[in-house]
Amino acid sequence: MKNEIKVAPMHKLIKRAGAPRVSEESALALGRALEEIGLKVAREAIDFARHAGRKTVKARDIEIAAKKVLSR
Amino acid sequence: MKNEIKVAPMHKLIKRAGAPRVSEESALALGRALEEIGLKVAREAIDFARHAGRKTVKARDIEIAAKKVLSR
Repeated sequence: MKNEIKVAPMHKLIKRAGAPRVSEESALALGRALEEIGLKVAREAIDFARHAGRKTVKARDIEIAAKKVLSR
Repeated sequence: MKNEIKVAPMHKLIKRAGAPRVSEESALALGRALEEIGLKVAREAIDFARHAGRKTVKARDIEIAAKKVLSR
Protein backbone atom coordinates (compact mmCIF):
# COMPACT_ATOMS: atom_id res chain seq x y z
CA MET A 1 0.00 0.00 0.00
CA LYS A 2 1.40 3.39 -0.90
CA ASN A 3 2.53 5.74 1.87
CA GLU A 4 0.51 8.86 2.52
CA ILE A 5 3.43 10.62 4.17
CA LYS A 6 5.94 11.88 1.63
CA VAL A 7 9.73 12.01 1.91
CA ALA A 8 10.32 15.78 1.45
CA PRO A 9 8.44 16.87 4.61
CA MET A 10 10.29 14.17 6.60
CA HIS A 11 13.61 15.49 5.34
CA LYS A 12 12.63 19.00 6.48
CA LEU A 13 11.49 17.70 9.87
CA ILE A 14 14.84 16.00 10.54
CA LYS A 15 16.65 19.17 9.41
CA ARG A 16 14.47 21.23 11.72
CA ALA A 17 15.38 18.90 14.60
CA GLY A 18 18.97 20.03 14.07
CA ALA A 19 20.60 17.39 11.85
CA PRO A 20 23.69 18.64 10.00
CA ARG A 21 23.09 16.06 7.25
CA VAL A 22 20.06 13.90 6.46
CA SER A 23 20.21 10.76 4.32
CA GLU A 24 17.37 9.95 1.93
CA GLU A 25 16.94 6.55 3.66
CA SER A 26 16.45 8.23 7.05
CA ALA A 27 13.68 10.45 5.66
CA LEU A 28 12.03 7.32 4.22
CA ALA A 29 12.40 5.56 7.58
CA LEU A 30 10.79 8.46 9.45
CA GLY A 31 7.90 8.44 6.98
CA ARG A 32 7.37 4.70 7.55
CA ALA A 33 7.54 5.11 11.33
CA LEU A 34 5.10 8.04 11.42
CA GLU A 35 2.74 6.29 9.02
CA GLU A 36 2.60 3.28 11.35
CA ILE A 37 2.18 5.45 14.46
CA GLY A 38 -0.47 7.53 12.67
CA LEU A 39 -2.49 4.43 11.79
CA LYS A 40 -2.30 3.22 15.41
CA VAL A 41 -3.46 6.60 16.69
CA ALA A 42 -6.27 6.75 14.11
CA ARG A 43 -7.52 3.25 15.03
CA GLU A 44 -7.66 4.15 18.72
CA ALA A 45 -9.38 7.44 17.86
CA ILE A 46 -12.05 5.59 15.87
CA ASP A 47 -12.71 3.41 18.93
CA PHE A 48 -13.12 6.52 21.08
CA ALA A 49 -15.53 8.10 18.58
CA ARG A 50 -17.57 4.89 18.37
CA HIS A 51 -17.65 4.66 22.16
CA ALA A 52 -19.05 8.22 22.27
CA GLY A 53 -21.77 7.20 19.81
CA ARG A 54 -20.28 9.20 16.94
CA LYS A 55 -19.44 8.20 13.38
CA THR A 56 -17.24 11.23 12.91
CA VAL A 57 -13.71 11.22 14.30
CA LYS A 58 -13.05 14.51 16.13
CA ALA A 59 -9.87 16.28 17.22
CA ARG A 60 -10.34 15.22 20.85
CA ASP A 61 -10.48 11.55 19.80
CA ILE A 62 -7.11 11.96 18.07
CA GLU A 63 -5.60 13.84 21.01
CA ILE A 64 -6.60 11.19 23.57
CA ALA A 65 -5.48 8.39 21.23
CA ALA A 66 -2.08 10.01 20.62
CA LYS A 67 -1.47 10.26 24.37
CA LYS A 68 -2.48 6.64 24.80
CA VAL A 69 -0.24 5.34 21.99
CA LEU A 70 2.75 7.35 23.29
CA SER A 71 2.39 6.24 26.90
CA ARG A 72 2.42 2.57 26.07
CA MET B 1 6.37 27.58 12.70
CA LYS B 2 4.55 26.05 9.78
CA ASN B 3 3.73 22.35 9.82
CA GLU B 4 5.58 20.08 7.42
CA ILE B 5 2.85 17.44 7.57
CA LYS B 6 -0.17 18.44 5.50
CA VAL B 7 -3.85 17.83 6.22
CA ALA B 8 -4.83 15.78 3.13
CA PRO B 9 -2.54 12.79 3.85
CA MET B 10 -3.75 12.76 7.49
CA HIS B 11 -7.34 12.66 6.27
CA LYS B 12 -6.48 9.67 4.07
CA LEU B 13 -4.66 7.92 6.92
CA ILE B 14 -7.68 8.19 9.24
CA LYS B 15 -9.92 6.94 6.41
CA ARG B 16 -7.55 4.04 5.82
CA ALA B 17 -7.73 3.16 9.52
CA GLY B 18 -11.45 2.58 8.96
CA ALA B 19 -13.21 5.80 9.96
CA PRO B 20 -16.67 6.21 8.42
CA ARG B 21 -16.36 10.02 8.67
CA VAL B 22 -13.34 12.23 9.33
CA SER B 23 -13.59 15.83 10.52
CA GLU B 24 -11.16 18.45 9.21
CA GLU B 25 -10.13 19.23 12.81
CA SER B 26 -9.20 15.60 13.46
CA ALA B 27 -6.91 15.54 10.40
CA LEU B 28 -5.28 18.75 11.68
CA ALA B 29 -4.91 17.19 15.14
CA LEU B 30 -3.25 14.06 13.73
CA GLY B 31 -0.83 16.25 11.73
CA ARG B 32 0.09 18.18 14.89
CA ALA B 33 0.57 14.97 16.89
CA LEU B 34 2.73 13.28 14.23
CA GLU B 35 4.78 16.43 13.73
CA GLU B 36 5.56 16.50 17.45
CA ILE B 37 6.35 12.77 17.56
CA GLY B 38 8.45 13.11 14.39
CA LEU B 39 10.55 15.89 15.91
CA LYS B 40 11.10 13.82 19.07
CA VAL B 41 12.18 10.80 17.00
CA ALA B 42 14.46 12.97 14.84
CA ARG B 43 16.15 14.55 17.89
CA GLU B 44 16.86 11.12 19.39
CA ALA B 45 18.12 9.89 16.00
CA ILE B 46 20.54 12.83 15.78
CA ASP B 47 21.90 11.86 19.21
CA PHE B 48 22.43 8.27 18.01
CA ALA B 49 24.20 9.46 14.85
CA ARG B 50 26.43 11.80 16.86
CA HIS B 51 27.21 9.01 19.31
CA ALA B 52 28.31 6.83 16.37
CA GLY B 53 30.61 9.62 15.20
CA ARG B 54 28.47 10.47 12.17
CA LYS B 55 27.10 13.79 10.96
CA THR B 56 24.61 12.06 8.69
CA VAL B 57 21.40 10.68 10.16
CA LYS B 58 20.80 7.16 8.83
CA ALA B 59 17.73 4.93 8.67
CA ARG B 60 18.93 2.80 11.59
CA ASP B 61 19.18 5.92 13.80
CA ILE B 62 15.55 6.73 13.02
CA GLU B 63 14.43 3.13 13.60
CA ILE B 64 16.07 2.86 17.03
CA ALA B 65 14.82 6.33 17.99
CA ALA B 66 11.22 5.52 16.96
CA LYS B 67 11.25 2.38 19.13
CA LYS B 68 12.63 4.38 22.04
CA VAL B 69 10.07 7.19 21.75
CA LEU B 70 7.19 4.68 21.48
CA SER B 71 8.28 2.58 24.45
CA ARG B 72 8.43 5.52 26.85
